[in-house]
Amino acid sequence: MPNPTAAMIVIGDEILSGRTRDSNMHHLAGQLTSVGIDLKEVRMIGDEHGTIIAAVQAMSKVYDTVFTSGGIGPTHDDITADCIAAAFDKHIDVRDDARAILAAHYARSGTELNEARLRMARIPDDATLIDNPVSAAPGFTLENVHVMAGVPSVFEAMVATVLPTLTGGAPLLSATLRIDRGEGDIAGPLGQIAKDHPALSIGSYPFQKDGKYGAHIVIRGSNQADIDAAVKKLEAAF
Amino acid sequence: MPNPTAAMIVIGDEILSGRTRDSNMHHLAGQLTSVGIDLKEVRMIGDEHGTIIAAVQAMSKVYDTVFTSGGIGPTHDDITADCIAAAFDKHIDVRDDARAILAAHYARSGTELNEARLRMARIPDDATLIDNPVSAAPGFTLENVHVMAGVPSVFEAMVATVLPTLTGGAPLLSATLRIDRGEGDIAGPLGQIAKDHPALSIGSYPFQKDGKYGAHIVIRGSNQADIDAAVKKLEAAF
Repeated sequence: MPNPTAAMIVIGDEILSGRTRDSNMHHLAGQLTSVGIDLKEVRMIGDEHGTIIAAVQAMSKVYDTVFTSGGIGPTHDDITADCIAAAFDKHIDVRDDARAILAAHYARSGTELNEARLRMARIPDDATLIDNPVSAAPGFTLENVHVMAGVPSVFEAMVATVLPTLTGGAPLLSATLRIDRGEGDIAGPLGQIAKDHPALSIGSYPFQKDGKYGAHIVIRGSNQADIDAAVKKLEAAF
Repeated sequence: MPNPTAAMIVIGDEILSGRTRDSNMHHLAGQLTSVGIDLKEVRMIGDEHGTIIAAVQAMSKVYDTVFTSGGIGPTHDDITADCIAAAFDKHIDVRDDARAILAAHYARSGTELNEARLRMARIPDDATLIDNPVSAAPGFTLENVHVMAGVPSVFEAMVATVLPTLTGGAPLLSATLRIDRGEGDIAGPLGQIAKDHPALSIGSYPFQKDGKYGAHIVIRGSNQADIDAAVKKLEAAF
């Protein structure tokens, strides 16, 4: 059985302008791989209603699970929650359960729960909240879409909460060999080994260090014996 | 007149599996912003024929310029050039001009130009080559798509070659203010200022340092007087 599939939507003008370097995609990619969920596509888009709604609708239909990051804070450019509601044709407003979480959090620090902060309690009907142990304002899950914060520490905490609730696939096994020769020398025999082991994914990742060429060959699959056989052939070839 | 638009397609299983952290997107984003081209969307996809072809066809229709990175090396998993040719219904084979570049490069280092390395001379008809000063194997431009290497040093060199050939828009001006208060305190007045200056893009990027909350407010636009006016209002408000 093929692994479950996932996609990610990274939302934020600051990523596309080059002001901020996204780190959430790389974090999520590693986490999903570790539980046997295949991340198939990532889209990075700006803070635009129509664009966000179209991406959510398209990707939630194609993939088993979709994750979004960014755009759920208190300022005017935080429009993700409203877009998710629109994408699934759900009503959205300040919700009592989310408001209670924020009220308790800000009461503790003596901060006013003003209108702007209340925006973070806007949650679509039928969504379930995702706990935010860092700064309280919750994410949420609606249908197969998990809506999470862009701030990396919060995003990572939310991923840790959501991941155990998902059904993973066969854990991906892998072996990595370093070959100290140029990819052009490796490519012929490597292509043959890849052909002989169609169930394996064999990737070649070149590097250049101290003026010498080499490549890391990564062999991935769910059958250890198959991987071992490919590794033996590779070792024999080089 | 609105700025020209661009999109990027990052190609490679190793990015989606979390093995490799992409750095090309962030580099390209900053470069495009500096010349007034708006990066509107980035897609990260795997080494799959159908997926690559569909992304290239969809995005080259919607955006003025498309950049791809990854998948143009000598190994079996390098399929980008063939996919680009297929996307535009062009014939592809080893081309004499690209072969000559590789032959000269490998002759210098006494390396055999074998069948695998010759794969890197596979260039679609009607494409123009993009110089690779790092490791010789060229990228290419076909229609409005620039096809470049995934290795960051090569990618960045190719961007430097291509960028001066593109028509940029009004250079984006920006001002950044650091406000040492939580976003929830800033959001109300900030939203009003954003409403009063519809031609500006005003973003709020929260941070937390030494237990204190703050935000960088970035005001972007093409009219300096407009930006200055918004900055004055912000300074007066906080």
